[in-house]
Amino acid sequence: MVDSETELIERYFRELGAARADVVLGIGDDAALLRVPEGNELVLTTDALIEGVHFLSGAPARSLGHRALAVNLSDIAAMGASPCWALLALNLPKPEEAWLQEFASGFGELARTHGVALVGGNLSRGPLSITVQLAGVVPRGEALRRDGAQVGDALFVSGTLGDAAAGLRRLQGGLLTTPAAGSYLEQRLEYPTPRVALGLGLRGLASACIDLSDGLYADALRLLHSSGCAASIELEHLPLSAPLLEAYGDAAWREGLAGGEDYELCFSAPPAYAAAIGRLAQRTGAAVSRIGRLEAGEGIELKLHNTVMQFAPSGFDHFRH
Amino acid sequence: MVDSETELIERYFRELGAARADVVLGIGDDAALLRVPEGNELVLTTDALIEGVHFLSGAPARSLGHRALAVNLSDIAAMGASPCWALLALNLPKPEEAWLQEFASGFGELARTHGVALVGGNLSRGPLSITVQLAGVVPRGEALRRDGAQVGDALFVSGTLGDAAAGLRRLQGGLLTTPAAGSYLEQRLEYPTPRVALGLGLRGLASACIDLSDGLYADALRLLHSSGCAASIELEHLPLSAPLLEAYGDAAWREGLAGGEDYELCFSAPPAYAAAIGRLAQRTGAAVSRIGRLEAGEGIELKLHNTVMQFAPSGFDHFRH
Repeated sequence: MVDSETELIERYFRELGAARADVVLGIGDDAALLRVPEGNELVLTTDALIEGVHFLSGAPARSLGHRALAVNLSDIAAMGASPCWALLALNLPKPEEAWLQEFASGFGELARTHGVALVGGNLSRGPLSITVQLAGVVPRGEALRRDGAQVGDALFVSGTLGDAAAGLRRLQGGLLTTPAAGSYLEQRLEYPTPRVALGLGLRGLASACIDLSDGLYADALRLLHSSGCAASIELEHLPLSAPLLEAYGDAAWREGLAGGEDYELCFSAPPAYAAAIGRLAQRTGAAVSRIGRLEAGEGIELKLHNTVMQFAPSGFDHFRH
Repeated sequence: MVDSETELIERYFRELGAARADVVLGIGDDAALLRVPEGNELVLTTDALIEGVHFLSGAPARSLGHRALAVNLSDIAAMGASPCWALLALNLPKPEEAWLQEFASGFGELARTHGVALVGGNLSRGPLSITVQLAGVVPRGEALRRDGAQVGDALFVSGTLGDAAAGLRRLQGGLLTTPAAGSYLEQRLEYPTPRVALGLGLRGLASACIDLSDGLYADALRLLHSSGCAASIELEHLPLSAPLLEAYGDAAWREGLAGGEDYELCFSAPPAYAAAIGRLAQRTGAAVSRIGRLEAGEGIELKLHNTVMQFAPSGFDHFRH
């Protein structure tokens, strides 16, 4: 039986991603069969990209393939887990081969980088949306969670903040930048870097961890709420890129706090681990900045050079914008 | 942080499905943490329902919750595996609470019936579509696959065939039936019965198995292709319901061969196991019919009372209809 869904899957997705010895049965049966190593827990997450919500109509297919996997890798990274196996549910208005080729190439390259096998999925006609499910493994009891932060811990973030949101604004035509800065910001939106190696290294160091998809302010509040503490953040320590500073000047910190789609990690750790975290950052190539500390209470206090600042972001909510 | 996506997940999805001791961490972190029992393989599948493709606009929310899980349970059943943990990615144009309540109720009831925990997901604005990923477990090396059928095996199907496709035609206004027959056929479309207990019981009996989503003819060809053999099917033995026969008369067998969305199991087994399979059918409440036998070669030969019949179905292909 050859039909077009089967043909397309054969052509673009069958050999995509990494080859893994723990895949007993991949694409082509009713379900995939996989071996979870003994002593490990299974880690499962899913995230979707929907046209008009998470990306603009006409976004490059290669970027969508990359992003759809990257946002899930970021969740696995935030758990301190190793990514292993992906399922891809792709809804397409019509199957254009050039689009599929580019999409598969963006997905496949990132999958191979992180040793992820594509083991199944679903291809349907429908309004363009991409849902990826990613499974990983983590030694039993060692996963990073949101609920372990302690009063007195330091608060850290990886990378730089706000770039992706600025990249989106530029694509929408609402941001004046030099070509170089604009292209950097767009790149940060379209090709986020999931911090997988950093997340793995944070096991045993971080007390709690979350990935940043809705903006630092909104996501840090989630971590604090789960852990039952408050935080004080020093805005002058927010890591902001030169292109973001060029585009927003003195207001750039607001973008760093509120901008979504960063896919950086925000985590807490005892201050005594700061040096070890610095070495980890260097080893994994993911810059890490200490931005504040955890306190008793709830909520976030913002200070800019010791002046308390007010800020009322809504975070990124798909049902509110 | 309270935002509407979080609120909706809390209200409708947090406690949905079964409670399971192997869920270390469910909804509410970056990913779920789960324990796969030792000696088992992990089974992963995903399937999507898209408005206008897999269901008509205005389809009852309760049915969509049921079906979205049922189609995935059917894949797990076809592997002879035990379903465990589900992830739900729901794209909604807008969050109507009555709709969510009904959807969650249909999903939750079927999840509890099969002991499935909802451990994560994603809720986004977008054209209505539902993607479920389902994970299960199966003792190492015991999964049913598509590629084990042997020449000489008998071919079986569960339940009755063609009802769901006839139900769809009736909903579209193209089928004249009595109210009772019509409502039976629609019910079979909207509330398919995944054959989980049958699949589990078939371990050690069936040589190959597939679930029927695109119609018996198309799906049996997939099993045959994977196993490298042919089949002869006796059309007078196709299990057809009284309402289907009422609606289609002598042409009902065509519906039984080509109608999609049955979510029954089609499997092969040595003829010597026929009695054991009959007892299994009785024990699990899933009727099983022997419809033919496997032969050398490729393709399917159809016979109606020993007369060879010709049939050229396209199967159900989302990119061709």
